[in-house]
Amino acid sequence: MTDTVKYLLDESRIPRRWYNIMADLPTPPPPVLHPGTKKPVGPDDLAPLFPMSLILQEVSTDREIDIPGPVREIYKQWRPSPLFRARRLEKALQTPAKIYYKYEGVSPAGSHKPNTAVAQAFYNKEAGVKKIATETGAGQWGSALAMAGAFFGLEIKVFMVRVSYNQKPYRRALMETFGAKCIPSPSSETQSGKAILAQRADHPGSLGIAISEAVEVAATNDDTKYALGSVLNHVLMHQTVVGQEAMAQLEMAGDYPDIIVGCTGGGSNFAGIVFPFIGAQLRGGKKIRAVAIEPAACPSLTRGRYAYDFGDTGHLTPLVKMHTLGSTFTPPPFHAGGLRYHGMAPLISHCQELKLIESKAYTQTEVFSAGVQFARAEGIVPAPEANHAVKGAIDEALRCKTEGKGKTILFNLCGHGHFDMQAYTDYFSGKLTDQSYDEKELAMALAGLPSVSA
Amino acid sequence: MTDTVKYLLDESRIPRRWYNIMADLPTPPPPVLHPGTKKPVGPDDLAPLFPMSLILQEVSTDREIDIPGPVREIYKQWRPSPLFRARRLEKALQTPAKIYYKYEGVSPAGSHKPNTAVAQAFYNKEAGVKKIATETGAGQWGSALAMAGAFFGLEIKVFMVRVSYNQKPYRRALMETFGAKCIPSPSSETQSGKAILAQRADHPGSLGIAISEAVEVAATNDDTKYALGSVLNHVLMHQTVVGQEAMAQLEMAGDYPDIIVGCTGGGSNFAGIVFPFIGAQLRGGKKIRAVAIEPAACPSLTRGRYAYDFGDTGHLTPLVKMHTLGSTFTPPPFHAGGLRYHGMAPLISHCQELKLIESKAYTQTEVFSAGVQFARAEGIVPAPEANHAVKGAIDEALRCKTEGKGKTILFNLCGHGHFDMQAYTDYFSGKLTDQSYDEKELAMALAGLPSVSA
Repeated sequence: MTDTVKYLLDESRIPRRWYNIMADLPTPPPPVLHPGTKKPVGPDDLAPLFPMSLILQEVSTDREIDIPGPVREIYKQWRPSPLFRARRLEKALQTPAKIYYKYEGVSPAGSHKPNTAVAQAFYNKEAGVKKIATETGAGQWGSALAMAGAFFGLEIKVFMVRVSYNQKPYRRALMETFGAKCIPSPSSETQSGKAILAQRADHPGSLGIAISEAVEVAATNDDTKYALGSVLNHVLMHQTVVGQEAMAQLEMAGDYPDIIVGCTGGGSNFAGIVFPFIGAQLRGGKKIRAVAIEPAACPSLTRGRYAYDFGDTGHLTPLVKMHTLGSTFTPPPFHAGGLRYHGMAPLISHCQELKLIESKAYTQTEVFSAGVQFARAEGIVPAPEANHAVKGAIDEALRCKTEGKGKTILFNLCGHGHFDMQAYTDYFSGKLTDQSYDEKELAMALAGLPSVSA
Repeated sequence: MTDTVKYLLDESRIPRRWYNIMADLPTPPPPVLHPGTKKPVGPDDLAPLFPMSLILQEVSTDREIDIPGPVREIYKQWRPSPLFRARRLEKALQTPAKIYYKYEGVSPAGSHKPNTAVAQAFYNKEAGVKKIATETGAGQWGSALAMAGAFFGLEIKVFMVRVSYNQKPYRRALMETFGAKCIPSPSSETQSGKAILAQRADHPGSLGIAISEAVEVAATNDDTKYALGSVLNHVLMHQTVVGQEAMAQLEMAGDYPDIIVGCTGGGSNFAGIVFPFIGAQLRGGKKIRAVAIEPAACPSLTRGRYAYDFGDTGHLTPLVKMHTLGSTFTPPPFHAGGLRYHGMAPLISHCQELKLIESKAYTQTEVFSAGVQFARAEGIVPAPEANHAVKGAIDEALRCKTEGKGKTILFNLCGHGHFDMQAYTDYFSGKLTDQSYDEKELAMALAGLPSVSA
């Protein structure tokens, strides 16, 4: 009865400020460029898409930004989220390492996404916006924004990648339960959707196409703005409540991480847990190893090029410098839908260039094997995305075993897998296989990157 | 920022003892009878099915029973569970009532069931048992025991009602992820299953049949015991951690309930939250109204007869006195699979006879309407079973509004609906309708009750 496994903070300990790593980076990331002029964009260029308060957060270099009262009030529903010591997993691995995990699956939508969804809905509501258009792949972001919309009385329209819309009816049902409208993309509601459907009526869709549709709806409707669930600076910043809480909880445990692991799709859950620790390091604190884990079938950080690229397929977004596989790259349909994006958050990409983070890619079957081992030890069934972080943490713990070192490992278990059980069924039946992208397609997508003389 | 919405207790506040209402009842419930002799059963009669430690708990009249250290250690994973003040729901209802809910969906299996699953697995392991056979309807109990089996290294075999096995592949996937074996019932693995299949090869199964199969496997295999997820005294007692915690959390809030609401299938989640409060009342504390909510399509408490009956269809179990619709009664296939049982826990039935609790029945569409309203206000999508409690609590809150009374309402949100989204899809598409049982079938089932001259 002496081993603590769960570190809880009182709701008074919900962070009062988001942490902005821009303030501590030795050099700023390259500017965002206008797709036409290829000159740096100003706040006004983004005004059709976002309320000004979020645009100012996007470009802010302040170290801390106050979390509005109504946002913290809603955070109380699931924050502070628990930090667990994975004692049964440690025992199963026979590792001298200590493994901690921050569990974001306790949010009502089941992932870390509500941390930014609630903030974005709040600022939009405050700016008098009535409707928000967005896209979703696996559905975690769409359902988080749907929930936030219900809380603030905003209409939410979600363009859901058609293949996911058909394969994941339960994520769709969750969005509808929260009152959102969910549309399979490509759709006939937008010009960009119609253009794709004209080429191929049964197009399965992609995140890049769905982004184009949502951006178009926002750009062409005065009462509608756009919201993105990852990639952008302000989105990553909203997620830093995760790392700030983890730091306080590890302090309760009398510990500090040597290694922090997270999975990366657009980069927001990884940034959320590591940025506060990297910031502390940059301000003279302890050096940590921050390891981003990505799918081998969509390896932007480990195989992508660091270059200016569009965020969407329709080329409606500004150009950002990031590790990218090219905006026309279509990853194979592996189960971690939240990690199927061609690019990486510019801030994460910049951190990799600055050698503040490492990255590593794993195949689908090995991460599911790790996820099942984790579930049997700890009881929580991770989302397919989170299985990547689990695998990364287990490998670090096994390395500690080999080296006889009792290091402290922290990872972000960014969501549960309750809506992804088909993937587990496929795994057990042997239908879930390792998929790889087409090397020629990748080469073509990279060759098609926009030319920017920066 | 001043309104607390979540009351958390440190893991040191996990209850150290289960509460046994037997110690405080003014009269004991009628004895359990041997199905052959119709004389009261002794502990030895139950020994083929359960380890002696659980049998002694079943018949104990001690007020408190110590929770073993290893069980509390595992409870730490999700206990103490949060108590929420439903401020946004109160606002939506414009009620002067205060609504609190205890949320058991934070357990890794998503419901209150692990509270007893872990305890039962522990005592079986301690007794040298290698395998446990059980049944499950909707799958909440089966997945909870599967998880507990994984923690203690026990083989778990789950007979899952065939219609649910086919309709709910994701609950099955969850059990398999934890390493359990899940078999559609009726099966050809048992004599009772074969007998049913001989009559009808495509029989959809029922909870009563699945219980017969699991009991038969336990009774005929030396290394195998049986486990039940509700109904029995020791199971209800294990759930009293819920009510004990809620009492401590309401004390943090400076409050005490006037009304407590829970849904009832076998009775365990309702007993878990109300028994500690009823016990306090019986020992001279404040009188509360405890309201059991059941489905109108399977109304054991509101329409059943208080009589001796079998727990299963194959008549392998002892006879217990309970509110029952008759062991041959087959409820229509409504979505709250966890509430589709012909009988009620003897202790709950006895409490109703003693007028310590009230009961009320609702139809399926009205409880889903309440569940959707709750989800949009509070963010959590309840399980179909829990929607009954939500509806009961909302109705009490609306009554407070009519009467202008600011009462304190507590209800048990016993699980989330992530594995039940098809039901929500059906609700939104209008396919989910109110189903009623056949009055003639009920009359026949009641006419077939065993005759006991007690």
